Amino acid sequence: MRKKVTRVDVAKAAGVAESTVSRALNDSTLISSDVKIRIRLIASQLGYIPNRQAVLLASNKTMRVGLVVRTYKSFSPFTRSYFPRLLDGVLQKAEALGYSVTVVLDKKNDEYKDLSEMIYSKEVDGFIFSVTPLEDPRFGDLLSHKVPFVLVNNLFQGADCINCDPYAGTRDALSHLASMGHKHIGYITGDSNYWDGKERLSVFQNLCMKQGMEFTLCQGNFSKRSGMAGAEKLLADRSGLTAIMAGSDRCALGVMEYCKKKNIRIPEDISLIGFDNLGPARDSVPGLSTIHNPVVRMGSDAMELLYQSLIEKIEKKTSLLIDSGFIIRGSTGVPRGQ
Amino acid sequence: MRKKVTRVDVAKAAGVAESTVSRALNDSTLISSDVKIRIRLIASQLGYIPNRQAVLLASNKTMRVGLVVRTYKSFSPFTRSYFPRLLDGVLQKAEALGYSVTVVLDKKNDEYKDLSEMIYSKEVDGFIFSVTPLEDPRFGDLLSHKVPFVLVNNLFQGADCINCDPYAGTRDALSHLASMGHKHIGYITGDSNYWDGKERLSVFQNLCMKQGMEFTLCQGNFSKRSGMAGAEKLLADRSGLTAIMAGSDRCALGVMEYCKKKNIRIPEDISLIGFDNLGPARDSVPGLSTIHNPVVRMGSDAMELLYQSLIEKIEKKTSLLIDSGFIIRGSTGVPRGQ
Repeated sequence: MRKKVTRVDVAKAAGVAESTVSRALNDSTLISSDVKIRIRLIASQLGYIPNRQAVLLASNKTMRVGLVVRTYKSFSPFTRSYFPRLLDGVLQKAEALGYSVTVVLDKKNDEYKDLSEMIYSKEVDGFIFSVTPLEDPRFGDLLSHKVPFVLVNNLFQGADCINCDPYAGTRDALSHLASMGHKHIGYITGDSNYWDGKERLSVFQNLCMKQGMEFTLCQGNFSKRSGMAGAEKLLADRSGLTAIMAGSDRCALGVMEYCKKKNIRIPEDISLIGFDNLGPARDSVPGLSTIHNPVVRMGSDAMELLYQSLIEKIEKKTSLLIDSGFIIRGSTGVPRGQ
Repeated sequence: MRKKVTRVDVAKAAGVAESTVSRALNDSTLISSDVKIRIRLIASQLGYIPNRQAVLLASNKTMRVGLVVRTYKSFSPFTRSYFPRLLDGVLQKAEALGYSVTVVLDKKNDEYKDLSEMIYSKEVDGFIFSVTPLEDPRFGDLLSHKVPFVLVNNLFQGADCINCDPYAGTRDALSHLASMGHKHIGYITGDSNYWDGKERLSVFQNLCMKQGMEFTLCQGNFSKRSGMAGAEKLLADRSGLTAIMAGSDRCALGVMEYCKKKNIRIPEDISLIGFDNLGPARDSVPGLSTIHNPVVRMGSDAMELLYQSLIEKIEKKTSLLIDSGFIIRGSTGVPRGQ
């Protein structure tokens, strides 16, 4: 680790006054360009690091972006594996682009944080919003004030948006089930206040109808608890239902827990498919067959998109849809009696 | 969202020149204190927000701390539930203290990041290091350069350190097993390059000897894979061993996976106890009895400790040990034949 080199050191080495060094480094017109060049050369040879804040203040940039994450009463945001993954993706790209990432906790005690203040006071250059409800009241306001931001897992007219398209993964999951002889599938929905909750359901329904697959819906909200309740409802009058698909992995884990309690075996008695392919899906026993949600990729693309509007001043807004995939693990199998 | 109020607006409202506003806000001695107070009052009534960077530049503070997280080749840091928990703890306390948190990715492509540069260039005021190996070469260097930092899950002479004391949790886990009739326990160790790997093992051994409990050790490294391999070794010649304790939850999940494959039932055939009480422990079926590692608390206390050396300029260094606890879930039971 090197010792800090100061302007005084540069002044000594150049044989000039400290104020002359400041003028040279600040590109002042009060000194000749010969002197300026000589001093800058010496400063760089000595390894002088200008105060980053001072440089950024002059350029009116912070080179920092805010990742906005909602806090909830019942749990801290990063206890859900979605947010850490997204952060990983944002961090990787930010590092490559020379940005740093500040995590912004949003909506504490039911009050939204005043994000415009963070822009005005030069805390960050722009925002990436992780999951937000469809009816978040602030996006129009932020747009009209030209605050740069990107939405992940939401859609707002006129804003940069990145979402996971559930189509490919859901199609492959249904084909997988159909190929093993499943004919009737139960579906526990996600939360319809969120873009993904609505879209996953709508794609599932459309694909079932197209493929002639019978299905039964049950309302859920992504949570493990809603998976337990949903499993109980769906399996009470099974009506030939041999597989359950859930709106999220957490919801599927709830189904697993219910089945374990009732001695219903997975996949022998019922097949199960989740959505997200986050940590718990790999760790469960049996492993959870699930639809892959490219969360890390979405984080990285969100940073790239924000960068484009910050640096390249691209005004045209983009709405990206990233493909999902399907991962086969141990929770799906041939239905009984086949 | 309000419109941005500028110095021009303040000058207009006060009926003075813009330069006078600047002088008032910068506490210049060139204007009278009457004028100063009047202009500041008007500025605050209008909701004028000074450029945060300019204010911080003047105070030589950034009000930002860096949470240093190592990147590994095989996985992104936040895919392991330890780091998200720690981040949650740091964020909560930082928010309360008026700090923001920037995540610093350390050691990419086997090269450590030059952290001193981040201090000199005023990117952050100080660092919190998450898990670092015992032999990290930089701490002495950082200390001698008076860079403020706190270590979580490591011990370094002369530095602020926060660790989890495995004693209480391990004691209660062993009592729990003893009370059900277990007399011989297998232990799969963590990685001895880390403080917690060494300390958990040493506390386990001491407590077993004190309580007259027989034990068999097997080398592991916190990973799921080492749990599978450890289970295979320990269960090959069981010699009456009726329970396994693992150096981490991930390691315990490896034991679970091995047992599932070999049709060894948990807890009917073998009891299992993990360490950490992170997400996967709650989600596994059966739920994992485990020793609670207060990671959120450690993050929050680390931020508090860093704050003390940043703001209150407390020079005396602190080494905090936070108590572990024991959580009983479904993976422990009465041994067979009792």
